[in-house]
Amino acid sequence: MREQIVLLRQAMKNAGVDAYIVPTDDYHGSEYVGGYFKCRRWASGFTGSAGTLVVTENDAALWTDGRYFLQAADELAGSGIELMKSREKGVPTITEWLEEKLVSGQTLGFDGRTMTLRQGKSLAETAEKKGCAVCWDRDLVGEVWKDRPALSDEKVWALDETLTGRSRADKLKFLREKIKENGADEHLLSSLDDIAWLLNLRGADVHCCPVFLSFFRLDENSAILYAEKSKFSDGILQSLAADGIEVRPYLAVFDDVKTVPEDKTVLLDPRHVSYALAEGIAAHKTEADNPTEAEKAKKTVAERENAKLAHVKDGVALVRFTRWLKQNVGKTPLTEISAAKKLEDFRAEEENYLGPSFEPIFGCGPHGAIVHYSATPETDAPLKPEGLLLFDTGAQFLEGTTDVTRTVALGPVTQEMRRHFTLVLMGHLDLLAAVFRKGCSGTSLDVLARGPLWDEGLDYNHGTGHGVGSLLNVHEGPQRIHYGAYSVPVPFEEGMITSDEPGLYLTGRYGIRHESLLLCEKRFENDYGEFFGFTALTMCPFDLDVIDPSLMTEKQKKTLNAYHRTVRETLSPRLSEEDRDWLLAATREI
Amino acid sequence: MREQIVLLRQAMKNAGVDAYIVPTDDYHGSEYVGGYFKCRRWASGFTGSAGTLVVTENDAALWTDGRYFLQAADELAGSGIELMKSREKGVPTITEWLEEKLVSGQTLGFDGRTMTLRQGKSLAETAEKKGCAVCWDRDLVGEVWKDRPALSDEKVWALDETLTGRSRADKLKFLREKIKENGADEHLLSSLDDIAWLLNLRGADVHCCPVFLSFFRLDENSAILYAEKSKFSDGILQSLAADGIEVRPYLAVFDDVKTVPEDKTVLLDPRHVSYALAEGIAAHKTEADNPTEAEKAKKTVAERENAKLAHVKDGVALVRFTRWLKQNVGKTPLTEISAAKKLEDFRAEEENYLGPSFEPIFGCGPHGAIVHYSATPETDAPLKPEGLLLFDTGAQFLEGTTDVTRTVALGPVTQEMRRHFTLVLMGHLDLLAAVFRKGCSGTSLDVLARGPLWDEGLDYNHGTGHGVGSLLNVHEGPQRIHYGAYSVPVPFEEGMITSDEPGLYLTGRYGIRHESLLLCEKRFENDYGEFFGFTALTMCPFDLDVIDPSLMTEKQKKTLNAYHRTVRETLSPRLSEEDRDWLLAATREI
Repeated sequence: MREQIVLLRQAMKNAGVDAYIVPTDDYHGSEYVGGYFKCRRWASGFTGSAGTLVVTENDAALWTDGRYFLQAADELAGSGIELMKSREKGVPTITEWLEEKLVSGQTLGFDGRTMTLRQGKSLAETAEKKGCAVCWDRDLVGEVWKDRPALSDEKVWALDETLTGRSRADKLKFLREKIKENGADEHLLSSLDDIAWLLNLRGADVHCCPVFLSFFRLDENSAILYAEKSKFSDGILQSLAADGIEVRPYLAVFDDVKTVPEDKTVLLDPRHVSYALAEGIAAHKTEADNPTEAEKAKKTVAERENAKLAHVKDGVALVRFTRWLKQNVGKTPLTEISAAKKLEDFRAEEENYLGPSFEPIFGCGPHGAIVHYSATPETDAPLKPEGLLLFDTGAQFLEGTTDVTRTVALGPVTQEMRRHFTLVLMGHLDLLAAVFRKGCSGTSLDVLARGPLWDEGLDYNHGTGHGVGSLLNVHEGPQRIHYGAYSVPVPFEEGMITSDEPGLYLTGRYGIRHESLLLCEKRFENDYGEFFGFTALTMCPFDLDVIDPSLMTEKQKKTLNAYHRTVRETLSPRLSEEDRDWLLAATREI
Repeated sequence: MREQIVLLRQAMKNAGVDAYIVPTDDYHGSEYVGGYFKCRRWASGFTGSAGTLVVTENDAALWTDGRYFLQAADELAGSGIELMKSREKGVPTITEWLEEKLVSGQTLGFDGRTMTLRQGKSLAETAEKKGCAVCWDRDLVGEVWKDRPALSDEKVWALDETLTGRSRADKLKFLREKIKENGADEHLLSSLDDIAWLLNLRGADVHCCPVFLSFFRLDENSAILYAEKSKFSDGILQSLAADGIEVRPYLAVFDDVKTVPEDKTVLLDPRHVSYALAEGIAAHKTEADNPTEAEKAKKTVAERENAKLAHVKDGVALVRFTRWLKQNVGKTPLTEISAAKKLEDFRAEEENYLGPSFEPIFGCGPHGAIVHYSATPETDAPLKPEGLLLFDTGAQFLEGTTDVTRTVALGPVTQEMRRHFTLVLMGHLDLLAAVFRKGCSGTSLDVLARGPLWDEGLDYNHGTGHGVGSLLNVHEGPQRIHYGAYSVPVPFEEGMITSDEPGLYLTGRYGIRHESLLLCEKRFENDYGEFFGFTALTMCPFDLDVIDPSLMTEKQKKTLNAYHRTVRETLSPRLSEEDRDWLLAATREI
């Protein structure tokens, strides 16, 4: 048995805990977690980005999804931890497993700071059902993890109002109004991108996401930012004070919320606020989506204009890279990792480049068919002058966040690849060209992107689009593009930035995805109401060498030609003569 | 002041009621209400199909929607009742109006049997907010309405299992399982189409809807149908008894529900069960959609096959009528009403025709632009050999319910009419041709029908599709086709019958609507899952004289030609030589 599990079991015994759950999350549900928060990784040895470990006196099991079945099997070998393949037939869910293992009178434990209120409630219900107690205020991994890294303590920096287009004071005013509208006295915010947006501050505590470890409490008269003071310059501290914001230590929030008077009402989002925070509050709790989520999604005019600038820089790097790639593949030794590095080098030459917005996905041949593939030194494949390369990458520029996928031919392609490439592109273009009434959501528009594939009995098992932040997280809500009928759809609003990324994946053969970011804009207004449409922010041609125009409608060709013309006209002034000539051919009319 | 209002005010005074609300509904929320239930009409004099009267000591006001502004103004003239144009700028809602008029300590009254639980709750909240009491158990109009018609007492008849494809016993078994699943002890059902479906019985108490006045209660061991025994033959009573169903008097349900033990749980649908029924129940109430609603929507194989037969008969009548209309307009004196009568005559020649499924809409010229237009002797317009006629009609055949709209040229049409006609048809065809993944809802598919109009900044302010019953109500849930993002979407299921009816309405000029009923069927199943598509049930050509094929995509033309070929091949054997020749030309390839 793995030593860490032995240690954890000892801690469980001392604490009187019979089953202990170790999730992947930090205290904020961040997409990436820092070293301090990698408890599940430390305890299990499994290094993937998603998974949950559950330990009892006699059993230890780790749940992860299809992306990680092979890797987890490797890494768990000999650990004594059983691999649970989530959503595979016959594999119990964590709840089902717990219901089988727990015996009345036992105690179920987890660190309540690493579970959302929603998750924690569900676990507490399971425990109650089985006549078990819950222990949520002990970090048992932390108690036995000797060489645990420190919490990230990167500096926080301020974003100028010329970039955000809206003052911190105005955002606080908005949020105070929303607290009132929800009939609450105060609001507790723990999602890091919401806090960064609200305060016009950025940080570097989470990989690829310019956010900083913090919590925030706001009521009518006061505001408290929970974050280590050492992260802030005097200037920022002064400007926070000027806006009436007190700064208190990061972890003090857990005790402070206990002091909220019982006759008060706290507004909080059960999808984000942790179980530990919520349980600490004796006051009444009103559960609702964070008001900042929908507001942040509607980019200000300044954010929209800056997003365009960021995408021009990104486009220059993408065009330079694609030409370089096409001209060097088969001549220069190249791999998925070295090509990704090269693209980042081109991006880094652009002004105000801050880093990637997520781990790059470079997948050639069969790797392209693995939706969340990220090359490791072990899997890193050499790029050969044949077939397709799918690359999904993004950048953080001071002016905004990018996220783009292109699929390019590295050499000869088959007629089938051409057909599939074109079908996916047709859906991408139909969504880009959509004109729609205000009130319409991504639940309604998804069929445009999937239609050409559905007609052929093809599909992709992921969403078509997600919201993207302004120099913030590359994934944000509330809007999404997916036909799934599981929740109340969120209508598009002017200024929202959403990805348009249909794909097609043939396991063991190749993958195709075409992704641009789309800005939602008003097209016209008449007696019927307002009509919206999309403008593509992403500036990078689709590989015409893999297109079969005979499959496309006239409208699709028109959309593609118009897009390519815009890319050409926008980027050409910024390119060398060689790159410009290449782009001219790459964006030729079809 | 209108005499009826004076009488009502006297009754209000006697009952200690300060404001009294008279809605249009019967005790079941039926689409049409019988004479007994026309309290609002009797009290106000307004004869439209939708409206609510509110009376206080000094005020009387009637709310109705845009369809009825002119008619209501006419009918209310001199009555002393103020017309409230719902949803017009500056017009208060009933709630807002009540909040202004009610004074603390007063009593708000309504007949709780004519309000759904949802509506009644909302009114009770308004009353509470103003410190007022609620009186919901007095039918004050009934108390002063001397010559009130009796309750409808038409005979109930049984539908053979060859038509329903499922026994009553099996449906009761299904419903008992659903009661359990919802953690309830019994279920109270008051929507008439659900009861008729459940019991494989039909009636004639509601205009155009083959349902009968009844309530139904079901628990694990017993079943009670509340309906007058005089409606049933001995044979039906025996078969009900054989399925363990007791028959008790229609109105006895209001007292009977009061006897449900307090420790029991009653499952009920707050959108259908009346406030009076729900308030009478002392037991715990679990609110959920009626389980029968979703089950009824998935037509059995027998219902699907019979629906096809019904639509062939309907198609024969439609084709005969359309040829007759085209050949006689301008030669024979014709009006909207006489043409509607002629179409009904053709339908009545078909076997097992039971009557219309709703009041026919025949609108020529500007009348076509009035979405819910129904010609009256006062508005009845002569049909001239020019412009467009929109007719939206439906039939009840023993084999199923039809609902179809076609728009035809009565003579020369303008290029603009042609363009608009074609744009609406393009959307209709794109929806008809959709192939989509299981899980996809009408919220997602709506954009296909609206897309060609949205592209031009045009739209129609009604849904694209509603569910249709099997020899039942022409409007039923739970599925619908509309992009509106206000509720959780309901996915399509195999066997659902849904209308596809985009339109375009130019006020004062003309209206266009193309409506067929679509049957949802499985297209194929592969590694991605199941794919569904639609088959048009409606058999009637679209008027090729008004089509501009240059606007259409190749796919749209293919869809139209395939549809027309099916109509031709299906109907031809049933037509006279003259009608067959006409159909041959009317369905020519474009």
